[in-house]
Amino acid sequence: MGKIVTLQQSIMAEDEKFASSIRKANQKRGLLMVNIIGSPGCGKTTLLEQTAKSSGLSFGVIEGDLATNRDAERLHALGVPTVQVNTHGGCHLQAHVIEKALESLPLDGLDVLFIENVGNLVCPAEFDLGEDFKAAVLSTPEGADKPLKYPYLFRSSEVILLTKTDLLPHLPFDMKMFEEDVRSLNQTAPVLRIDGIGGQGMSEWTDFLKGRIAEKRRG
Amino acid sequence: MGKIVTLQQSIMAEDEKFASSIRKANQKRGLLMVNIIGSPGCGKTTLLEQTAKSSGLSFGVIEGDLATNRDAERLHALGVPTVQVNTHGGCHLQAHVIEKALESLPLDGLDVLFIENVGNLVCPAEFDLGEDFKAAVLSTPEGADKPLKYPYLFRSSEVILLTKTDLLPHLPFDMKMFEEDVRSLNQTAPVLRIDGIGGQGMSEWTDFLKGRIAEKRRG
Repeated sequence: MGKIVTLQQSIMAEDEKFASSIRKANQKRGLLMVNIIGSPGCGKTTLLEQTAKSSGLSFGVIEGDLATNRDAERLHALGVPTVQVNTHGGCHLQAHVIEKALESLPLDGLDVLFIENVGNLVCPAEFDLGEDFKAAVLSTPEGADKPLKYPYLFRSSEVILLTKTDLLPHLPFDMKMFEEDVRSLNQTAPVLRIDGIGGQGMSEWTDFLKGRIAEKRRG
Repeated sequence: MGKIVTLQQSIMAEDEKFASSIRKANQKRGLLMVNIIGSPGCGKTTLLEQTAKSSGLSFGVIEGDLATNRDAERLHALGVPTVQVNTHGGCHLQAHVIEKALESLPLDGLDVLFIENVGNLVCPAEFDLGEDFKAAVLSTPEGADKPLKYPYLFRSSEVILLTKTDLLPHLPFDMKMFEEDVRSLNQTAPVLRIDGIGGQGMSEWTDFLKGRIAEKRRG
């Protein structure tokens, strides 16, 4: 297992060109790439840790954070090839740094590559990184009213993960409103309920990924 | 009690000029303005609801959201003069819309004006709205590792509110690490523990505000 590579991100124009070249290269490789987006502390890294422990899938991660290597260290400890990108104030990852990160990862033999975007429900939803699809993560303590208040992410995601379901007994979370609001924004994305610590919902998440990996390999 | 005013925000250069003119006008008025910043669902609106119920302070609110009037309606129901700003994808409030919002609020006789910024730990920390100070809000389920991962906000705030302390018994929250990390970024800001539903910490928050209001009035 190699060491953690840390890249720095700068502001860069023509990012769409990078996104499109990444998409083409991954098409050729048959590699599925998933852009995971959610608030700070919504459970993105815990989801990836559990995926490493329980899915049987071989994957790599590009970790986006303003600062620190903490998330990369957590995944590295589980043997997951991880590149850390520090944005130094940048509120979302950009495609040019994803292209660089891809060069630092052992892509051969991976089933899927996850991008864990900067913790933010707003900006990352609006930037294409060349991914196959976006996965929206919302944790139950954030509240059931968030889909309508942050509609862009929920509209543009192909799967929606409601995390920290173990906290539901302690929270005033209106599940009916949440599900109706999500459906008013997005008619097709499956909504998976995940307890990343206890493991609830991990098999549905793994099945969803396996379906998309198989599709991608068929080309 | 009037109706809720909703303003639209556009992208605008020269925002620093607006921030500086707002600061001057509030200096003249002797009006304290606080910019509240935290993740989606960290409890910003609940804090303001509790402040309305328990502080005895007279205040107004400028509510920033990508979409919906939901937060403004919650405060309006408690008789709090509120202007809703919808940013339509904008990840933070801008000073020019704050100046417009100030025109729509009955400022005479207010003790303090709160800005509830767009739910986001990143971008709002970097934009001056002419406020007297920033208040950082972090909720316990987001995790104790967030100050170092989102250092800009914690460095630039003059008070730090740790909310949803009622959930602590159900969470793996490392309070010692949290407090040490906060102090490594910010040596002076008081850290208040708040349970916005149960009311814990509200008197400390009210006392803090009263001190700053008195200071402002002395000029």
